[in-house]
Amino acid sequence: MASMEAPPQAAAQDRDYKLMKEAVCEAYRAVDRGDGGPFGAVIVRDDAVLVSCHNLVRKNTDPSAHAEVTAIRQACRRLGKVDLSDCEIFASCEPCPMCIALIRASKIKKVVYGAKAEAAVAAGFDASIPEAFVEYYRKSGIEIRQVQGEAAQIADKVFEKPWEIPGEAMQRRRTGGGWLEKAKGMVIRCLWN
Amino acid sequence: MASMEAPPQAAAQDRDYKLMKEAVCEAYRAVDRGDGGPFGAVIVRDDAVLVSCHNLVRKNTDPSAHAEVTAIRQACRRLGKVDLSDCEIFASCEPCPMCIALIRASKIKKVVYGAKAEAAVAAGFDASIPEAFVEYYRKSGIEIRQVQGEAAQIADKVFEKPWEIPGEAMQRRRTGGGWLEKAKGMVIRCLWN
Repeated sequence: MASMEAPPQAAAQDRDYKLMKEAVCEAYRAVDRGDGGPFGAVIVRDDAVLVSCHNLVRKNTDPSAHAEVTAIRQACRRLGKVDLSDCEIFASCEPCPMCIALIRASKIKKVVYGAKAEAAVAAGFDASIPEAFVEYYRKSGIEIRQVQGEAAQIADKVFEKPWEIPGEAMQRRRTGGGWLEKAKGMVIRCLWN
Repeated sequence: MASMEAPPQAAAQDRDYKLMKEAVCEAYRAVDRGDGGPFGAVIVRDDAVLVSCHNLVRKNTDPSAHAEVTAIRQACRRLGKVDLSDCEIFASCEPCPMCIALIRASKIKKVVYGAKAEAAVAAGFDASIPEAFVEYYRKSGIEIRQVQGEAAQIADKVFEKPWEIPGEAMQRRRTGGGWLEKAKGMVIRCLWN
């Protein structure tokens, strides 16, 4: 019954969407918990989520604790090895030079990101990436690509900044594909379908 | 009695030597303790050593735990802030792209290194740095320079590899300017004058 199955491209987009949603949820979690900037990352192995992490710069007073870095550290601890060549990483935003360099060091070969770095820069984050860097890492054998469609839209929405307005109550915020329930000090719940 | 004082250039070289010696001692310590590769870094603030760290990749199963990264993390924790703009970093080897990117993120403006990255590459480490990267970070306002003279020599010697020969006893090893006492499992002592 091959005709009943989703075409391969649609299945890949669906996979991208589900994994990007996880990364985006982490990005909101970082802000809601006051842990750091709105960035999340998920490491996938054997087609399952191995770790799901967010930015901890503020919580840990650690400028290296970007979402991708915390995810790679946790994945390595969990697997007991520093070689993640059998893993992929999904990041809510295009990785910065530090993160791409660590991705290379950890031997991850596939990077899928949601928002472009420019979106983070426009929101006031120092996330610029010279094109020469991206090319260098591509030539190192790393596949770096942006998600498409709705997955990219929910990643972009992370940089809407109601969470930067002090004291403002944030109850429910419509995002691509569903609702995001938010309240200061509470763990968020992602309600996308 | 100005004639009795060391000329400014000699004083600067002496300072470089003392701080590079600290970083180099850390590099040996990394290997002797089995913590990671032979790389050390020292962060200086108000002309005093704030932290002195080494590579912990193996010990922590963490590919991000380069000497510069562990030093920056520890300095930030100690100062309770992620802005190290009033600090300098001395590294036993030219920082890799990940480390330079973190140095930029932490706002450190002065980087002094001992051995060229090529020396680490020749010793089998993945430490290549595209020239475009170094230029990019220089343009970001970071002063990156190599130490000269004896300080560079002791940094280069770190990549002599007797510590890679399994089971070989390493007692005393002559290095630039003095002796280095080494024994597996023991903390080394730097005996340079």
